[in-house]
Amino acid sequence: MSLSPLLTDLYQLTMMQGYFVSGLHTRPATFDLTFRRNPFQGGYAVWAGLEVALAYLDQLQFGNTELAYLESLKLFRPDFLAALSGWRFTGRVTAFEEGRVVFPHEPLLTVQGPLWEAQLVETALLNVLNFQTLIATKAARCVTAAGESASVLEFGTRRAQGPDGALGAARAAFIGGASGTSNVQAAQRYGLPVSGTHAHAWVESFDSELDAFRAYAALYPGQTTLLLDTYDTLASGLPNALTVAGELRSAGHELRGVRLDSGDLAYLSARVRAALDAAGYGGVQIIASNDLSEFVIESVIREGGRVDVYGVGTQLATGGGPGGGALGGVYKLVALGGQDRMKLTGDAAKTSLPGVKRVWRGTDAENRLALDVIAAEGEGEPLPGERFSDPANPLRSLRIGPELSWHDPRRVVHDGGQRTRAPEKLADLQARAREELAGLPAGTLRLLNPHRYRVSLSAELAQRRDTLMAELQLRHGL
Amino acid sequence: MSLSPLLTDLYQLTMMQGYFVSGLHTRPATFDLTFRRNPFQGGYAVWAGLEVALAYLDQLQFGNTELAYLESLKLFRPDFLAALSGWRFTGRVTAFEEGRVVFPHEPLLTVQGPLWEAQLVETALLNVLNFQTLIATKAARCVTAAGESASVLEFGTRRAQGPDGALGAARAAFIGGASGTSNVQAAQRYGLPVSGTHAHAWVESFDSELDAFRAYAALYPGQTTLLLDTYDTLASGLPNALTVAGELRSAGHELRGVRLDSGDLAYLSARVRAALDAAGYGGVQIIASNDLSEFVIESVIREGGRVDVYGVGTQLATGGGPGGGALGGVYKLVALGGQDRMKLTGDAAKTSLPGVKRVWRGTDAENRLALDVIAAEGEGEPLPGERFSDPANPLRSLRIGPELSWHDPRRVVHDGGQRTRAPEKLADLQARAREELAGLPAGTLRLLNPHRYRVSLSAELAQRRDTLMAELQLRHGL
Repeated sequence: MSLSPLLTDLYQLTMMQGYFVSGLHTRPATFDLTFRRNPFQGGYAVWAGLEVALAYLDQLQFGNTELAYLESLKLFRPDFLAALSGWRFTGRVTAFEEGRVVFPHEPLLTVQGPLWEAQLVETALLNVLNFQTLIATKAARCVTAAGESASVLEFGTRRAQGPDGALGAARAAFIGGASGTSNVQAAQRYGLPVSGTHAHAWVESFDSELDAFRAYAALYPGQTTLLLDTYDTLASGLPNALTVAGELRSAGHELRGVRLDSGDLAYLSARVRAALDAAGYGGVQIIASNDLSEFVIESVIREGGRVDVYGVGTQLATGGGPGGGALGGVYKLVALGGQDRMKLTGDAAKTSLPGVKRVWRGTDAENRLALDVIAAEGEGEPLPGERFSDPANPLRSLRIGPELSWHDPRRVVHDGGQRTRAPEKLADLQARAREELAGLPAGTLRLLNPHRYRVSLSAELAQRRDTLMAELQLRHGL
Repeated sequence: MSLSPLLTDLYQLTMMQGYFVSGLHTRPATFDLTFRRNPFQGGYAVWAGLEVALAYLDQLQFGNTELAYLESLKLFRPDFLAALSGWRFTGRVTAFEEGRVVFPHEPLLTVQGPLWEAQLVETALLNVLNFQTLIATKAARCVTAAGESASVLEFGTRRAQGPDGALGAARAAFIGGASGTSNVQAAQRYGLPVSGTHAHAWVESFDSELDAFRAYAALYPGQTTLLLDTYDTLASGLPNALTVAGELRSAGHELRGVRLDSGDLAYLSARVRAALDAAGYGGVQIIASNDLSEFVIESVIREGGRVDVYGVGTQLATGGGPGGGALGGVYKLVALGGQDRMKLTGDAAKTSLPGVKRVWRGTDAENRLALDVIAAEGEGEPLPGERFSDPANPLRSLRIGPELSWHDPRRVVHDGGQRTRAPEKLADLQARAREELAGLPAGTLRLLNPHRYRVSLSAELAQRRDTLMAELQLRHGL
């Protein structure tokens, strides 16, 4: 996927020119990409989009068409445009591995490089990473709600935010745990499993529902899933599906599944399951669709529904629902020319953490995630007995116990103008996310009012923040 | 923009093959694209995306790469794949002109053509038109809230759903009334006004806020907008901006604007306005940003805020907010081989309207929109005294008054494999939307609990629906 260098906010380019003219453009800068609240009022986010972001950085350059357009805006000087023509992104990017679970305030991705390079890429990085992380997190929530015995498919292309929104959603949903997508182009592009059933129009194109079912089964004998609700799920669709299931079996095949797309999914799926089982079709899967969300899935299961596959559309493709719609990731200057930087704010939770940082992730004896510590660059692993403070609440601190082991969940992924690691396979990202989610403390996966995973600041980092804040207030007479 | 024929749900392709094998693929079919609820719990939608949809239909064909991928799925027969290699969309498309206001139950776009052609395009048409209409409607709501004396800019690229989601949002937001975008690529692609200010990072890159402001003003003397809240809006940003405004004026320029990006926007904008006016800078605009929505804009104004330009980000780029996130447009088979078709449902509001239809839009003596009537194809304009029924409530009907004049708001936009009209300019679409919105009955524009614009069914259409429903129930023993 090729992304234009003009996929950015105008002010990035006017600031770039300003840095260039002021001689600041090559000063070494560090920006952190972070978010302040978990999406969906949940307990975590699944970090996704890194491969897309790195592909963007790799191919980023200004061609003649882009330079001519910028010239036409009458905002840019010839010397600046000439400098852009040879411009490439050469900075270092350090980021959480894609598929990891991440939390508010953590530096998810850190860009270190010449100020004008790090500035330009803000918009596109946020665009890609906010969206992909939102959808991967939504998928993880749906998969969690569906439980071990059911799976989730991404069915939302028709409600996604544009063609590429659909493709991106299919990719991120897979990382978050969806088993596949209905979007053929997404399957082609990303190598995803693709699946589908048929629509009401198919049934309405035949003289009867039974004729329509038979025609579909004749064409796809080993792979038929029949949609039951064109006329009436229990009175018409189910008996016709049973007839076709029998005919398939006589011919040496098995009906693969039936789909419910309206009505009370808990009630109907239980009734259909019982009828299928009673007729000897225990292997026929029940697929449910129709405005599903993690909360609908949870309620179908709680009320005794018997669904094997949840086809989630709108909410999975758009990351909709309470606390959704967009991840509010931000990209903040944290160091410039070796000095810490931060934006002042009256809201403690919105204070950015200054300086170049690292993250230590602590796991317990059972290899469960216990605690993340945001520390200054170069700080070693947290020691038992050390005190760490809460980034959102300076009044709270906690003491590290002796039983934790520590690792660095971030990697240098781009340096000196190129990627430092081979692109990862989506299946590996999905596996990583699954493993991380399985390792979260009990309650963190809960859909509503989850356990809040602990993220703390090292004493050194907290002190640097407090010192800088005091200095800025003094300097600006506040 | 080139869109793949594989931008579709798998079942469209398996159904296409089924129609092909069953010999149904060339039967003349009619599908209607409709929605059932206005987005954002509002009183209307602004129809957008038609040009994008037509461009998609124009270039739609299966190349060797796509055919090879389909072959690899082991679902498709060689004769079907061979038929796809010469496949083109040849159907007729009738649609509301882009930029028109539209309402639930109306056939926004009608595809008439061979069944397999009309079936394939469902997913991509819904994808494009659902999203564009959602965003254009959101923009119209924000512009309505901002009122005549303020304008709205689209600032949401960093939170949009992928790169193309950002581009599409900028396009649709402009149609709905936004004055421009911050997205440079969108401005380039669609010829939109592009604008921007600077970020906090700019200020933090200089030794002082005043230095940063001066450097920006020196570079863009006629076009400087200064961001006031890096350290403190009233204590630091405002006095420094006033200093720079004076320096600019001494040099023969005027400061263009200041931007507020945090805090109480109503209070701060009133304070900043008063200070600017008192210092003789009545021409300096105040731009506000920071998680805006139509409701925030309305409350800023209600509380005495003095904002000239609202930069709306996340909610405008994603169509977020109550009742948002996605427009639930559907695409239903309504006729096949000359016979009416519909899907049965227990919910009267979800019943689709069978048959090939037309829309009559009635305006009153002041040229205000009064009533839309959905009629059968070929029905003449509604006559005074005729009774029309409510599509969502069969028990309700109304009688047409004598004072209305009628027009057809839909056009044939694609026929015989090509467009029938030249592409329209975005500025013309924006003007059309503005005019239509201005012509809506009082209260229809209200953000909450709006007046419900009347959409009625002709007696003939209502009777055809009832007859078909009775027949289907009888045939399926319901």
